Amino acid sequence: MSNINPMPTIISQSDLLEAKARISPVVHNTPILTSAFFNSLSEAQLFFKCENFQKVGAFKYRGATNAVLQLTNEQKSKGVIAHSSGNHAQALALAAQVHGIKAHIVMPSTAPKVKSDAVAGYGATITFCEPTLEARERTTKTLIDAKGYTEIHPFDNDHIIAGQATAAMELLEEVPDLDVIISPVGGGGLLSGTALAAHYFGKNIKIYAGEPLGADDAKRSFDAGKLMPSLNPKTIADGLLTSLSPRTFGIIQKHVTDILTVSEEEIIDAMKLVWERMKIIIEPSSAVPVAAVLKNNSLFKNKNIGIIVSGGNVDLSRLYF
Amino acid sequence: MSNINPMPTIISQSDLLEAKARISPVVHNTPILTSAFFNSLSEAQLFFKCENFQKVGAFKYRGATNAVLQLTNEQKSKGVIAHSSGNHAQALALAAQVHGIKAHIVMPSTAPKVKSDAVAGYGATITFCEPTLEARERTTKTLIDAKGYTEIHPFDNDHIIAGQATAAMELLEEVPDLDVIISPVGGGGLLSGTALAAHYFGKNIKIYAGEPLGADDAKRSFDAGKLMPSLNPKTIADGLLTSLSPRTFGIIQKHVTDILTVSEEEIIDAMKLVWERMKIIIEPSSAVPVAAVLKNNSLFKNKNIGIIVSGGNVDLSRLYF
Repeated sequence: MSNINPMPTIISQSDLLEAKARISPVVHNTPILTSAFFNSLSEAQLFFKCENFQKVGAFKYRGATNAVLQLTNEQKSKGVIAHSSGNHAQALALAAQVHGIKAHIVMPSTAPKVKSDAVAGYGATITFCEPTLEARERTTKTLIDAKGYTEIHPFDNDHIIAGQATAAMELLEEVPDLDVIISPVGGGGLLSGTALAAHYFGKNIKIYAGEPLGADDAKRSFDAGKLMPSLNPKTIADGLLTSLSPRTFGIIQKHVTDILTVSEEEIIDAMKLVWERMKIIIEPSSAVPVAAVLKNNSLFKNKNIGIIVSGGNVDLSRLYF
Repeated sequence: MSNINPMPTIISQSDLLEAKARISPVVHNTPILTSAFFNSLSEAQLFFKCENFQKVGAFKYRGATNAVLQLTNEQKSKGVIAHSSGNHAQALALAAQVHGIKAHIVMPSTAPKVKSDAVAGYGATITFCEPTLEARERTTKTLIDAKGYTEIHPFDNDHIIAGQATAAMELLEEVPDLDVIISPVGGGGLLSGTALAAHYFGKNIKIYAGEPLGADDAKRSFDAGKLMPSLNPKTIADGLLTSLSPRTFGIIQKHVTDILTVSEEEIIDAMKLVWERMKIIIEPSSAVPVAAVLKNNSLFKNKNIGIIVSGGNVDLSRLYF
């Protein structure tokens, strides 16, 4: 990847505070829901930070907005590009459109139609490619070399990570006495931001992540102490197919307590329970940390647990249940 | 029907205020959501009063609670009974259980399993019967005659109507400058309560109802000026199969501006749009007023419109889209 910073950067407390001040006027401070049913089931107090109600239906709008607002005028005039399996694409498309910037999105041909339709609806130009990381990166690089677009990587970018951190910052403002925050982990942008927010603004909060067994590079990397990317990830949680980068892995190694894996069946069961009992639509990726909490009762019993509900973009024509 | 009051009763402003004071400690003051997407689509300002987030997933918990809390000790000791196609059954079951009262529910054999499971989960005894109004009423009467249960009718009951009114009362407290409130109409309990709330606590608010074409007794009765029950109602909006009673029809004739009918396709399209864009689960009955607003643009353009989202109890194993 052409734009990885060879030296790990430090994302500071100020970076997070500035990100929050920068994006708060244009992103939703999303509601935090509770559920007597889930509290009873988990024997814990759960606080669902509902980024499914965020603009474009996902937390990704936070990071994309924070990144776009820090472009130079020259970068703005040439436009931005990203490769994304879905929600980052929509987020960057809308964040760019709102500020009069042209967005170019490289999407895998397997992306849900509801997501590509939304990206097009936000005025972005879409280039489809094979559903592999290699094909995405190659296609993106070709367009950058030819057109001078600025890449806004979905997670391997400090501005993105600082933007994603603002969800947990809002959660901690409303519920300061959390014992645990858990988020899903794919590329690690949300998890990194969440961990940094808890580090800078929380009091001894343990950070966990939920990860699908079918795309468990973060768990394997965390246990091995070195990056072990997924070679052929497969999960219904299509937002979590990507693997960690050195940048996100560094933050996760330092600030995360553990990664908890769940099966496809556990993801689907948790998603169905949330739809049925909370009457909110969450996407499979968001059901992953819920499943992890329900699976690890002994770890979480009687705790105050914040769950980052990452998004609600699902293809309703697909059979989930 | 054995228990219709031959004289139409007057539900007063005090009745509504007392109902609200009585039930507020135990029902949710549900959130009111807005949506930039739906505002743009309707060219109006829509305020969704989300009773899908109410206990048992429907506004029915309000009326059931208001009724149960006014039983005599003798009535409480014998137990309550109702026939219901679904949400009232759950509501009465839970409201009774919370106050240590035994509930008996007569349900049509066609009721969604998710609803009968929930009723059983709240500790009620279920008697299934043929899915006709006649069979429901006969079965209910047999049990009342044998056991002395007190019937809590789903809508033909002043305490129920006053309880349902509290949803619109809360809506008006938060959004006082509404031009219109629209609710679904089945038996007319919610619509009657909504109309009375607007009459007593609103400023010149027009009340509309959305009704499925396949169960359009309220529209036909309203236009004809006399009760014209549905003989063979059929709609995906399974909460709206029942016909008005003289009690609810009287209130509706006096306080409602019009009944707007929508097709099955319009109901399903509206439901899908709400799921997709607002990330909340609403049941088909709740999509009916949404569809009516979208269909009647000229009537509602530029207005502030409150929509009572009646519930969110759907069977996720069913194919809707």
